Amino acid sequence: MPEKIPVAVLAATGSVGQRFVQLLDDHPWFKVVALTGSPRAVGQRYDEACHWVLPEAMPGWAAALPVQATDPENLSVPLVFSALPSRVAREVEPGFARAGTMVCSNASAYRREPDVPLLMPEVNPDHLSLLAVQREQRGWSGGIVTNPNCTSAGMTVTLKALQDAFGVRRVFAVSLQALSGAGYPGVASLDILDNVIPYIEGEEEKVEWESRKMLGTLREGGVELAGFAVSAHANRVAVSDGHLVTLSVELENGHRNDSHKNDSASLERAAQVLREYTAPPASRDLPSAPRPVILLRDEPDRPQPRLDRLAGGGMTTVVGRLRQDPLFDLKMVVLSHNTIRGAAGGSIYNAELLVEQGWLG
Amino acid sequence: MPEKIPVAVLAATGSVGQRFVQLLDDHPWFKVVALTGSPRAVGQRYDEACHWVLPEAMPGWAAALPVQATDPENLSVPLVFSALPSRVAREVEPGFARAGTMVCSNASAYRREPDVPLLMPEVNPDHLSLLAVQREQRGWSGGIVTNPNCTSAGMTVTLKALQDAFGVRRVFAVSLQALSGAGYPGVASLDILDNVIPYIEGEEEKVEWESRKMLGTLREGGVELAGFAVSAHANRVAVSDGHLVTLSVELENGHRNDSHKNDSASLERAAQVLREYTAPPASRDLPSAPRPVILLRDEPDRPQPRLDRLAGGGMTTVVGRLRQDPLFDLKMVVLSHNTIRGAAGGSIYNAELLVEQGWLG
Amino acid sequence: MPEKIPVAVLAATGSVGQRFVQLLDDHPWFKVVALTGSPRAVGQRYDEACHWVLPEAMPGWAAALPVQATDPENLSVPLVFSALPSRVAREVEPGFARAGTMVCSNASAYRREPDVPLLMPEVNPDHLSLLAVQREQRGWSGGIVTNPNCTSAGMTVTLKALQDAFGVRRVFAVSLQALSGAGYPGVASLDILDNVIPYIEGEEEKVEWESRKMLGTLREGGVELAGFAVSAHANRVAVSDGHLVTLSVELENGHRNDSHKNDSASLERAAQVLREYTAPPASRDLPSAPRPVILLRDEPDRPQPRLDRLAGGGMTTVVGRLRQDPLFDLKMVVLSHNTIRGAAGGSIYNAELLVEQGWLG
Amino acid sequence: MPEKIPVAVLAATGSVGQRFVQLLDDHPWFKVVALTGSPRAVGQRYDEACHWVLPEAMPGWAAALPVQATDPENLSVPLVFSALPSRVAREVEPGFARAGTMVCSNASAYRREPDVPLLMPEVNPDHLSLLAVQREQRGWSGGIVTNPNCTSAGMTVTLKALQDAFGVRRVFAVSLQALSGAGYPGVASLDILDNVIPYIEGEEEKVEWESRKMLGTLREGGVELAGFAVSAHANRVAVSDGHLVTLSVELENGHRNDSHKNDSASLERAAQVLREYTAPPASRDLPSAPRPVILLRDEPDRPQPRLDRLAGGGMTTVVGRLRQDPLFDLKMVVLSHNTIRGAAGGSIYNAELLVEQGWLG
Repeated sequence: MPEKIPVAVLAATGSVGQRFVQLLDDHPWFKVVALTGSPRAVGQRYDEACHWVLPEAMPGWAAALPVQATDPENLSVPLVFSALPSRVAREVEPGFARAGTMVCSNASAYRREPDVPLLMPEVNPDHLSLLAVQREQRGWSGGIVTNPNCTSAGMTVTLKALQDAFGVRRVFAVSLQALSGAGYPGVASLDILDNVIPYIEGEEEKVEWESRKMLGTLREGGVELAGFAVSAHANRVAVSDGHLVTLSVELENGHRNDSHKNDSASLERAAQVLREYTAPPASRDLPSAPRPVILLRDEPDRPQPRLDRLAGGGMTTVVGRLRQDPLFDLKMVVLSHNTIRGAAGGSIYNAELLVEQGWLG
Repeated sequence: MPEKIPVAVLAATGSVGQRFVQLLDDHPWFKVVALTGSPRAVGQRYDEACHWVLPEAMPGWAAALPVQATDPENLSVPLVFSALPSRVAREVEPGFARAGTMVCSNASAYRREPDVPLLMPEVNPDHLSLLAVQREQRGWSGGIVTNPNCTSAGMTVTLKALQDAFGVRRVFAVSLQALSGAGYPGVASLDILDNVIPYIEGEEEKVEWESRKMLGTLREGGVELAGFAVSAHANRVAVSDGHLVTLSVELENGHRNDSHKNDSASLERAAQVLREYTAPPASRDLPSAPRPVILLRDEPDRPQPRLDRLAGGGMTTVVGRLRQDPLFDLKMVVLSHNTIRGAAGGSIYNAELLVEQGWLG
Repeated sequence: MPEKIPVAVLAATGSVGQRFVQLLDDHPWFKVVALTGSPRAVGQRYDEACHWVLPEAMPGWAAALPVQATDPENLSVPLVFSALPSRVAREVEPGFARAGTMVCSNASAYRREPDVPLLMPEVNPDHLSLLAVQREQRGWSGGIVTNPNCTSAGMTVTLKALQDAFGVRRVFAVSLQALSGAGYPGVASLDILDNVIPYIEGEEEKVEWESRKMLGTLREGGVELAGFAVSAHANRVAVSDGHLVTLSVELENGHRNDSHKNDSASLERAAQVLREYTAPPASRDLPSAPRPVILLRDEPDRPQPRLDRLAGGGMTTVVGRLRQDPLFDLKMVVLSHNTIRGAAGGSIYNAELLVEQGWLG
Repeated sequence: MPEKIPVAVLAATGSVGQRFVQLLDDHPWFKVVALTGSPRAVGQRYDEACHWVLPEAMPGWAAALPVQATDPENLSVPLVFSALPSRVAREVEPGFARAGTMVCSNASAYRREPDVPLLMPEVNPDHLSLLAVQREQRGWSGGIVTNPNCTSAGMTVTLKALQDAFGVRRVFAVSLQALSGAGYPGVASLDILDNVIPYIEGEEEKVEWESRKMLGTLREGGVELAGFAVSAHANRVAVSDGHLVTLSVELENGHRNDSHKNDSASLERAAQVLREYTAPPASRDLPSAPRPVILLRDEPDRPQPRLDRLAGGGMTTVVGRLRQDPLFDLKMVVLSHNTIRGAAGGSIYNAELLVEQGWLG
């Protein structure tokens, strides 16, 4: 690759925006040439406008960049990463797509549109073909590609492996979500010290729906949702990064009946399926591809956010405590880094697939 | 009540033992006359032997008491509260029962014995009649009465109200448990700061079984387990006190079918059932009775451990986020104070029922 | 006292305002008849307008009160408690004083005015006589009385006892301050989890000055500052309530010289001075008087915020680790509840002194 | 360097031992060939014997190593890193030294011996010459070199820069120390959640003495302590890694007097001294040399443990909030990673200096 592709980060001062900046430092394909922010921040240097919350130091090139307005007129780059709040994304992202820019968006605004890919390259790279529909229907020369909600990400990777091997019918999912998922300033410290908040606005609806789209089937310019059903409960806990989800999964008819309930062979087969899951060939060798896609741990008490969230550079989905479920078939714990695999890192991985498949310029 | 009943606390220096001491301060019926501890502690003053971890100050009378050995020979009181580790309880508690002492035990050692009541006075006071079986079969003049595991407690109260009204068929329970549930020193700070531990040894088995005994039916000198099934997942979180459990409950046939799924009337009926649940008459007016038994909160983000654990002096079960479950029928969050309602407070409430029903001397 | 005095709480929805409401529940002398809030909140019920952050439940009478505007015209009560932000307090509090109302203010706005008492009843009740100067100079029929910054409070009580006995010359003070001191939402959770913030804006200046005024001498209509000097460093730590301050104190000439450095007798004398300190007679028996004023603990590792902040209902100053200082004379740790003794409770104690001394109507 | 030097880590399963293993992964000069542990662990694989607490994954080569006994007979390597508890180190380390092994020890056991270097290569590399005295006096062919206590480390680097430029006379130091400094399991979570512990056994004595030895002068086979005096107060806070120390420093006569107190020029000169401090030439280019030695930050609220502890790979001392002190001359905040610069990393840096100066076989 002779020259790097110039990109911009929209809403670069927030917590997901900062993660974009940190992960794009020294990226082999992309070079950040612009950072945007709210009107209040426009004109300031990035290091003045931004309350940096990551333990990794702010890259020097970013510190000196001026914060610009989020305006397609002035940002003529082939690719932007969007960390915009959903309401703003709804307004602004189409302008970029119309102007020929590819938008890799972490916002939820367009995830439910039939012609917008909700994309995880290790799960459903074929959904990228929706871009052709999107361009034709909307008359855009660019386009919008979304990544899932931070809690949906790890869970969907896990369900994909099980879906392929056994079919999935019903899923109970209870999340213990990190503070960085709420942005900055986000959760007040007085609300979470010595506490749990058993509610995150709008989250359960996303978790119950998004994996069904990602595991769904392309059908006439849209996606037919996967046939399983999900019940989600979302909790906020005092963890900085890393969403943990406990899953109980009922598999398709035939896999389990009473006589097989304690069949350790079937449990071992599920373990093998998770351990051996690989990304489709198109996505396997991209720079941000998780290595491995799924890390299955055998210890009784793993994964844990503090110890496992940075597996595979934060892109790997870590699964543990795989065991029989007394009511359904399988029970397990899934951990995924919410601002890397579940947000900025996932979006960058999407962009790499876009480049690889020739959707850019 | 003319004179207070002299009682002892076994294993009084641990975190549950301390809670017994704190809750028995100024109890209207009981007066603590002895505290026991491990061989290392015997002979020391209680305030020297004990690393006190409660925010409530150690009562003055306790500070000066000498720590004694846990020995039925030397402790001739009609009633002891046991905070012994399970392995020790297994050895030691029968000696007290044989010697004519009633043991109100927080240990798990005898919970599964058919003739030992697993008792919550607001749930199954009738199970106390097992004591007659126990005395006859074992030739004891005292006896052992157990209270449930700290996580089972709040969940069982909730299921009891639903069981009475609708019948319960299947339950998914995911807990977020407090540090004090692991005793002292218990969980190392390096293991839980900025972290979740998705595993607690032996806990899930207890949670999946204990509510079935408490909601079971007396049958020929034992208890026929309630017919529902539970799948439990236990997590440890950075909270000092207060276990939170998310429940998804499938009710008996007939209550829910697809046409009723969004029936807000049925949801309102469930709310009413929870709100109006009262303890059986025998248990209703005892000193430690929870007032109310269940507090149903309407806010979207409650109950929370820090804000709700001390409802009803820590004896009330707080339920919130009652809503339809996409897979089963009802979904909700349950909070219960683990060292009060779930341990020492529950044990004291049991003892009050024993006194009221004439089982003491 | 035949009838309670009607009072209002200004800025009742914030974290200090909530503490006023909680502490005034069932107060023997005062009855809250009005709660005020920001324009956005006016007209709402208090329980709707307020994100309640205290573990103690919101009193029922408060929940139903309508939030009113902070306007002396409409609030004709003899006494208001002000939890206003300093900038607003600067504007608004004189209006109340002019209208004949006594303002007991937690704001820093008027603390430095020569004719405004900076008052702690257990330290300097005589400073209340400045009110006469204030009324005369400003032509007010009411007045403003302030309480100190939350960090200055406990430290000043301690220095008062030492000042009386030995004289104080120089003080190094390093604070570890609780989150509730920053109000709500205050400190973002991402900023304080697994972290310390070694800076609190404007705090060190207050700590270096306020105790000098409170320990100063009345002089011609003002206060001559006490002659000692203070160097303060303020840190924010992950604690909900309770400010801890480490003090190194140099006493007046004559008390210490090299030959006395290891004189345990002089250390014991300092301990006695702290232990036996009592409030001046005027303040000793008021309802909110700390009992005791200073609690001196002997354990090597106390005071600790979680275990000691509620000593004396949160009004007592807890001192521990009293020892020789290698550079100055004495070294110790001081703990004081920042929203009780250091804010709302202190302000109520001030109000009680006002009533007792006949300054109200 | 043609071949790596084989080394062993003593007490490799503890929290400092783990940090040695992690930092020695891929070290350019050293190759770990043996790990030792307590009798209980001997014979197990390292990954079975060790409760790994670091977020960095355990290196694969370490996982498979068998844990050996800490016995000089069986460990014939030229260099060992000791994470032994002080009491054990006292017994065991001389055996290695006698057998010709160089011991780089993190234990406090021999720090106070006149002929044992207390070494920080960026501060006092010349103290290494004590090894000749040590070998002669004790008849050893190996030797013991110690690194300072984790809290002394960052503070001593800072004082060294000031000492060289201005002379230091008196220092007040108050520390806010991380949990990993107490080892594993160390501090119980119930003791530190929502709390501060204002006491660490034995810590203040070390902090008040160690920097005086490191900044002292070589004199007839020993070190004459530096002439300044320190008063230290140690607190434990809920931080995983990174000790923060607030310093007030009085400089030598002549630097400051009342007329210079607000002299911003002198403050700027101190800033320059800190910013430009470099390690002596012998230590400057070693693999573990901190780059830079001191990082001076300008923001009002830095350094912070979570954001700054990994500066320079955890070897850099981060200083901030440099300002005039109202009583002494300078006030500042110092942060240093306690298990890297303050323990294992410092010990490895010492070993590199040993190699460079030809003290190894």
